[in-house]
Amino acid sequence: MEEKMKRLVLSILLLLASPAWAQPLPSWNDGAAKQGIVEFVKDVTAKGSKDYVAPAERIAVFDNDGTLWAEQPAYFQLAFALDRVKAMAPQHPEWKTKEPFASLLKGDLKGALAGGEPAIGQIVMASHAGMTTDEFDKTVRDWIGAAKHPKTGRLYSQMVYQPMLEVLRYLRANGFKTFIVSGGGVEFMRVFSERVYGVPPEQVIGSSGKLKFELRDGKPVLVKLPEIDFIDDKEGKPVGIQKHIGRRPIAAFGNSDGDLQMLQFTAASAGKRLMLLVHHDDAEREFAYDRQSHIGKLDKAWDEAKAKGWTVVSMKSDWKKIFSFEGTKQ
Amino acid sequence: MEEKMKRLVLSILLLLASPAWAQPLPSWNDGAAKQGIVEFVKDVTAKGSKDYVAPAERIAVFDNDGTLWAEQPAYFQLAFALDRVKAMAPQHPEWKTKEPFASLLKGDLKGALAGGEPAIGQIVMASHAGMTTDEFDKTVRDWIGAAKHPKTGRLYSQMVYQPMLEVLRYLRANGFKTFIVSGGGVEFMRVFSERVYGVPPEQVIGSSGKLKFELRDGKPVLVKLPEIDFIDDKEGKPVGIQKHIGRRPIAAFGNSDGDLQMLQFTAASAGKRLMLLVHHDDAEREFAYDRQSHIGKLDKAWDEAKAKGWTVVSMKSDWKKIFSFEGTKQ
Repeated sequence: MEEKMKRLVLSILLLLASPAWAQPLPSWNDGAAKQGIVEFVKDVTAKGSKDYVAPAERIAVFDNDGTLWAEQPAYFQLAFALDRVKAMAPQHPEWKTKEPFASLLKGDLKGALAGGEPAIGQIVMASHAGMTTDEFDKTVRDWIGAAKHPKTGRLYSQMVYQPMLEVLRYLRANGFKTFIVSGGGVEFMRVFSERVYGVPPEQVIGSSGKLKFELRDGKPVLVKLPEIDFIDDKEGKPVGIQKHIGRRPIAAFGNSDGDLQMLQFTAASAGKRLMLLVHHDDAEREFAYDRQSHIGKLDKAWDEAKAKGWTVVSMKSDWKKIFSFEGTKQ
Repeated sequence: MEEKMKRLVLSILLLLASPAWAQPLPSWNDGAAKQGIVEFVKDVTAKGSKDYVAPAERIAVFDNDGTLWAEQPAYFQLAFALDRVKAMAPQHPEWKTKEPFASLLKGDLKGALAGGEPAIGQIVMASHAGMTTDEFDKTVRDWIGAAKHPKTGRLYSQMVYQPMLEVLRYLRANGFKTFIVSGGGVEFMRVFSERVYGVPPEQVIGSSGKLKFELRDGKPVLVKLPEIDFIDDKEGKPVGIQKHIGRRPIAAFGNSDGDLQMLQFTAASAGKRLMLLVHHDDAEREFAYDRQSHIGKLDKAWDEAKAKGWTVVSMKSDWKKIFSFEGTKQ
């Protein structure tokens, strides 16, 4: 029994030291947003509360780009795709004369993207398909461990919002299961979601390409095909949630019109629900953009949030710090 | 602190009472199959073992039909579909003269299925599409609570294998996350997977139809479209696992050739792995079928199991009881 007793004591100490006992959300200023989150969690977890929700049904969904990590000056996954095309160019001499690759390799990003969505599609497919899932995993792992954000010079995986990490931890400490539901590529995000967000790969929902099972020298692999399977954005988000989770979330976090349907879907079920939008209004510490932005446009969802009383977070006034590295040297 | 202390004491008592401390797999006879499972679990969970696997990576996948519950004389989901068509017939006068519905409604199942896969497809689509996911959930819930197996007269949800329920519990008590990976419909299985197997909806992977997000009177719903989205069988199983879980299982349980690729996929990663096939060889207590069967054919996978030393369970000799109701009156 001795070893068992030791483990029990250790479990108790860990429990007492867990965030559940500490003051929640230390990087949040006191205000309506923080209060709204804390009261929601109290109401759905207190036994006997009329809003009580059983732990198995405490599903919280988070958009990624612009909600958990930054998305300016461009989606980080696009930076990955561009870096991959450059790295793969020696194996593709034909790209020297073929758009959008020719412009891209000359350093003319604007020219490369002039072809619009089809051009972006070609860049994404060239960098995300034609290899096995294991090979893709490795290229993302190598990239995310080294590539740096053009403005801050920090690793992309450091460009995560400290207050949102605290929300993820706070919800999990209160029996929630946290999911990422993002327009980003599911196999891209899964490489770092567990380490960076504490969200295991099986709780990441995203856009995806088709896969093909193959035996290569008798060894089973999955090959990434250059064909879209599912786009997890806008109307796709509730669909992705249903396909993957099979029940409605009780809390949903987003930052743009791409998250509107996910918040509507969450709001529509009976009981107390939390719908939250992060508003990027801090040009100094991060970026300021909303109705007019091409990336992370916040327009219709903002109006609906105001009309329905959903929580809108001001990064400028609700968050004490945005990135964990603030105040530290690069 | 008093309330907290009470909870701690309760947690400890629950921990001590948990299956982890009891003798595992009581419905299994001692033998190579049971020993193989127990040794595998010991090896991958003992710290310091060369085969140790971190809890987050302890993924176990289970086929459903023929592995967790029975599949004879026909897949239970087909029985559901037939019952639905009969119940919906008054709203579909045109079915009286339209095959496969006309034969089906006259009680001529053989005639109805004479049209082969297209006929089955029409029956499945009529019973599984054209309604919201909430509506479908309710029809399955009503059916599974009342419909009975033609041979035993028991509820279909009682036709589950007691020894496999013990494996599910034993693995979870040892830090595994258990998933269902079945050719059956994902939204069909999710209705009862948590209650019957202890597997929450988000850990059920199956075949699915396309979904469409709609606002009905301002209320968001998901409509089930009469179009296949994904078939989670054979080569589809590793694909479904990758789409949904994003890492390779370390244990896989099946019973037919439809599970072969899932077992191959599990076997191929480095480290100690458990691949197990249930062989239906007990005509008296259940059903006996393998190489020649139209349902749950076990042929190629059986040969590969023999060649590679995977575990093959004889229901007749490895299981003390098959159903929990054995020895009780109906």
